[in-house]
Amino acid sequence: MRIITISREFGSGGRELGKRLAEQLGFNYFDREIITEIAKKTELDEHYIDSVLEKGITAYPIHIGQTFAGVSTINHTPIEVLVAQQKILKELAEQGDAVFIGRSADAILKDYNPLNIFVYAEMESKLARCKAKGEVDVNLKDKVLIRKIKNVDKGRYRNHNIIGNSKWGDRKSYHLMVNTTDLKIADIVPAVKEYALKYFEKNEK
Amino acid sequence: MRIITISREFGSGGRELGKRLAEQLGFNYFDREIITEIAKKTELDEHYIDSVLEKGITAYPIHIGQTFAGVSTINHTPIEVLVAQQKILKELAEQGDAVFIGRSADAILKDYNPLNIFVYAEMESKLARCKAKGEVDVNLKDKVLIRKIKNVDKGRYRNHNIIGNSKWGDRKSYHLMVNTTDLKIADIVPAVKEYALKYFEKNEK
Repeated sequence: MRIITISREFGSGGRELGKRLAEQLGFNYFDREIITEIAKKTELDEHYIDSVLEKGITAYPIHIGQTFAGVSTINHTPIEVLVAQQKILKELAEQGDAVFIGRSADAILKDYNPLNIFVYAEMESKLARCKAKGEVDVNLKDKVLIRKIKNVDKGRYRNHNIIGNSKWGDRKSYHLMVNTTDLKIADIVPAVKEYALKYFEKNEK
Repeated sequence: MRIITISREFGSGGRELGKRLAEQLGFNYFDREIITEIAKKTELDEHYIDSVLEKGITAYPIHIGQTFAGVSTINHTPIEVLVAQQKILKELAEQGDAVFIGRSADAILKDYNPLNIFVYAEMESKLARCKAKGEVDVNLKDKVLIRKIKNVDKGRYRNHNIIGNSKWGDRKSYHLMVNTTDLKIADIVPAVKEYALKYFEKNEK
């Protein structure tokens, strides 16, 4: 199985890069799908799972169909989400060649010798990209948005370092790190694809 | 002028990548030539210049044709080398499109909007590459060689951070970071070339 993992700073265009890469390589693509599968397995709310995987393991669990008010005892802990994450990622990897976006796939799928890519950009570029994609409330001040962007990355950093032995954003954890500042994602896909094919060729030897 | 700078961990194959890239793009290539030019300008010994630029600014100056014993007063300080380095790099950049290897060209030539690439690898891979290239004394124990490799990088880190505002080896300082572990340099040149052409296309707009 040829596995590509994309770790990314929020707003850097990592998701788009992964999606285009999957299309051009004919690989499966798993992003939001990972959350949906964990929700099915654990019967936990997708928002809660998101919180656990992205923002840290501090969120309060909500079962599907429940509200905060309806939770009497905590049966499902963040640990359950993390265990499900491990299982689901491996099940998805077994389905064939794939690109995984985030969710510490680089650490969890390390036995597959994945090609680990990190995508990042300068803050100004991330801010512009987030606004253009409607991923943030454009009525908020830039200062507030920047804080939000930084907070998402802090959560990713923290959670990745809990799950794996490698550090999020540290060059040693990746094969390729791509700065997308001012670049159109579509323009850099051919280069990354070219690198990926060489990487897998080498692994097959 | 299209300028590519290659910063690299010792033994990572950065020089080979730069050389091949320059060949395939039809760019000038400056590596050792930078030292030779500084030596001409300052009339200092090339080994001394090397020490200043790579190992830190602590080395004792030796003029061409002199030995340690022959130095009575210190007329030429490391500062002179660093000033010459600034001048020479800019003069070389003015000659046309070029690839620069090391010597803090990324920081010194920043007004040219250079494409800054960082090349790195796992220690085992760097050790094997150094041995294969005869860049180290193979009679030395691995432990000693690893210490030497680490020391070269420490000098590069230190000196780069004196010269520029950006940190050596930190992702924010580069556009592309390539891990060459177990890869043949020739195999990854097309991907890097492809990325470079897109980078310069964007800059020309």
